[in-house]
Amino acid sequence: MRTEIIAVGTELLLGQIANTNAQWISKKLAKYGAPVYFHGVVGDNMERAIKTFEVASERSDVIIVTGGLGPTEDDLTRDAVKPLLKQNLVIHENTLAKIESVYRKNNRQMTTNNRKQALVFEHASVLANAEGMAPGQLVKHDQTLFVFLPGVPSEMKSLMEEHVLPYLIDVFQLESEIVSEMLRFIGIGESTLEHKLEDIIKHQQDPTIAPLAAEGEVGLRLTASGANAKAKIAALKADVLQRVGRYYYGSDDMTIEEKVRDLLKAKGMTLGSAESLTGGKFIERLIALPGASAVCEGGLVAYTAQAKESVIGVSADLIKQHGTISEECAKAMATQAQKRLSVEAAISFTGVAGPDNSEGQEPGVVYIALQIGGQDPIVERHHFEGGRDNVRTRAVKKGYEIIFHHLKK
Amino acid sequence: MRTEIIAVGTELLLGQIANTNAQWISKKLAKYGAPVYFHGVVGDNMERAIKTFEVASERSDVIIVTGGLGPTEDDLTRDAVKPLLKQNLVIHENTLAKIESVYRKNNRQMTTNNRKQALVFEHASVLANAEGMAPGQLVKHDQTLFVFLPGVPSEMKSLMEEHVLPYLIDVFQLESEIVSEMLRFIGIGESTLEHKLEDIIKHQQDPTIAPLAAEGEVGLRLTASGANAKAKIAALKADVLQRVGRYYYGSDDMTIEEKVRDLLKAKGMTLGSAESLTGGKFIERLIALPGASAVCEGGLVAYTAQAKESVIGVSADLIKQHGTISEECAKAMATQAQKRLSVEAAISFTGVAGPDNSEGQEPGVVYIALQIGGQDPIVERHHFEGGRDNVRTRAVKKGYEIIFHHLKK
Repeated sequence: MRTEIIAVGTELLLGQIANTNAQWISKKLAKYGAPVYFHGVVGDNMERAIKTFEVASERSDVIIVTGGLGPTEDDLTRDAVKPLLKQNLVIHENTLAKIESVYRKNNRQMTTNNRKQALVFEHASVLANAEGMAPGQLVKHDQTLFVFLPGVPSEMKSLMEEHVLPYLIDVFQLESEIVSEMLRFIGIGESTLEHKLEDIIKHQQDPTIAPLAAEGEVGLRLTASGANAKAKIAALKADVLQRVGRYYYGSDDMTIEEKVRDLLKAKGMTLGSAESLTGGKFIERLIALPGASAVCEGGLVAYTAQAKESVIGVSADLIKQHGTISEECAKAMATQAQKRLSVEAAISFTGVAGPDNSEGQEPGVVYIALQIGGQDPIVERHHFEGGRDNVRTRAVKKGYEIIFHHLKK
Repeated sequence: MRTEIIAVGTELLLGQIANTNAQWISKKLAKYGAPVYFHGVVGDNMERAIKTFEVASERSDVIIVTGGLGPTEDDLTRDAVKPLLKQNLVIHENTLAKIESVYRKNNRQMTTNNRKQALVFEHASVLANAEGMAPGQLVKHDQTLFVFLPGVPSEMKSLMEEHVLPYLIDVFQLESEIVSEMLRFIGIGESTLEHKLEDIIKHQQDPTIAPLAAEGEVGLRLTASGANAKAKIAALKADVLQRVGRYYYGSDDMTIEEKVRDLLKAKGMTLGSAESLTGGKFIERLIALPGASAVCEGGLVAYTAQAKESVIGVSADLIKQHGTISEECAKAMATQAQKRLSVEAAISFTGVAGPDNSEGQEPGVVYIALQIGGQDPIVERHHFEGGRDNVRTRAVKKGYEIIFHHLKK
């Protein structure tokens, strides 16, 4: 299975975006040991696109094409590959009906251009696009399989996961050659983790073990191959967790937000937030997850001192005495949010996102308080590095870390 | 000057990194109006690399090659291009001396492999690498110019800026810097925009005009070169805005959130939100911007029906009668938020993010209401396509669109 990935779009050749689609697809295929031999990018130019597809069809078994399926003049993928495939383009009625229904639902006028997105090759297997208009297509030509996907990453990914990968796995009998597990830790630094596992990391050969620093957390990738790869990984994982298991929250695609949602669900608890500098980012990350309604009532976002009084109910006296960027204010925010939102647990964030100082305190200073049930609220003071975005993101991550360590007790 | 950029490295084909080098180089060249026609990626495989260079040399005037110049076995760029260039590789003495001195300074043992990095083509112009070991090279072959650069981005960039760009500007007389402006529109679809500008887009040659669809908005890139490029773009922009100016919110790096912040600031207005399915994402995007405190008080996030009553103050009767996913509830949320947050303008979001139906309505159905001052609240019903993330993101974008269209009146 010699695979080639071709992106069509002048925006790539102008450097407006990087070809992250090719990276994503390659990574997926690498997991199955399916080698990708070439990436190519060609612009919205008919002659060069035609030539590119010709070259590809001579050297590759599977050609995955992203982009150029949209409604406009310069979306030329279909027309550029048509001379090679020698197939007519026909309207796919289901797709057309879907496009029409979207326009109807939104009371918008459909133009003739929009019909173009419903054009498919007459012998194509048409793949329904759950995230957008133009469907994916699988088209066989001699010994070569052409896969056409939209260039919008969310649409491309959904079509790959839902249709293309299962098809390739089936037809080419792909088996995951390498077994790998990413252990995810929070609340421990990369160097401390490495130090605690120094002898294991140094002498370990099979499975291999590789640390990886991420935003506010650390990963350890265990990788093995061969017949008993899974057993080898399980044994090494047990060794690792015996030393640093208290910081471990999950593996692979698990996120700390999902872990917190699961812990809340298991305990039948609800959570809410009172947020100043984080502006709702903490609660938004939780509501982003399916099943959030079982564990999340809502949040209070109060960016100004005035709003902290009116929206959250922090007393004017307390703010006058301690300021809003203080242990006392953070505690009051959490306690009040717990009441106003009628939740078992409430977390609060107040601090300085920057770029300027606030109430005489430096950018990066953040207080996070957590109130659970009738216990005294706990509060932590942190000083995060970096710009406005980084401070806010790190504060939210730290919030999830704090809740995680409390809930798993 | 037909340019092609080729990256050599299996790590790209495994998806371990994206080809950001090609993006960076393309962006630089686009500024000088030097068109890039192809990007290619090939792995550390001699046969396929040789073939890739052959194809490139037949269709391009300038071939910029990144990667494969390192000291290890699989760094094969030099050897793969050698049959084509028909030149010997020789040790570049200055480079070798530099490598030896680096090893001496760090008390490290130099291996024979390291000598490999000092190998250059006998007729190459050697470009000193200020950031690393392997130098860059310019090699002419028939009518084609080969440029060899290391794959490490900092080394590649420094060599491009210091040596390659000045050389290309000189040889290809790239004086005419390209001027380009990206016009950003919201509230109009890509196909409708194109339809309204059909004759302009079809007959326009200089400046060129290219539509670009983005998440919930549309861009039009105007590009011109030559002495009066700026004036030509200004004239075309005026033409375009005469037809579709009501959807235009800004150019280049401007975002719709920034535009809304600026409009609020100019009018001395404050904004707040009442959010259900968007979970605080709307207000978070505003608070993410510097200067948010002047225009934003805060937000109320109420994910459950219960929270819509207690946190926002929607009446239980209204929810009983109309449900939470209704015009009436959206309006009440906006009106209540305006009061509770003491803001001039409040926006609300209620709907079904999915994956399951809710209150008998499909995923994607979202009501957005806006209350400004004492006016009657306006409300819109939308039906967004896609998964949970997409529905929530599109809803937030639509919210900014609605506010923008009201504020700019």
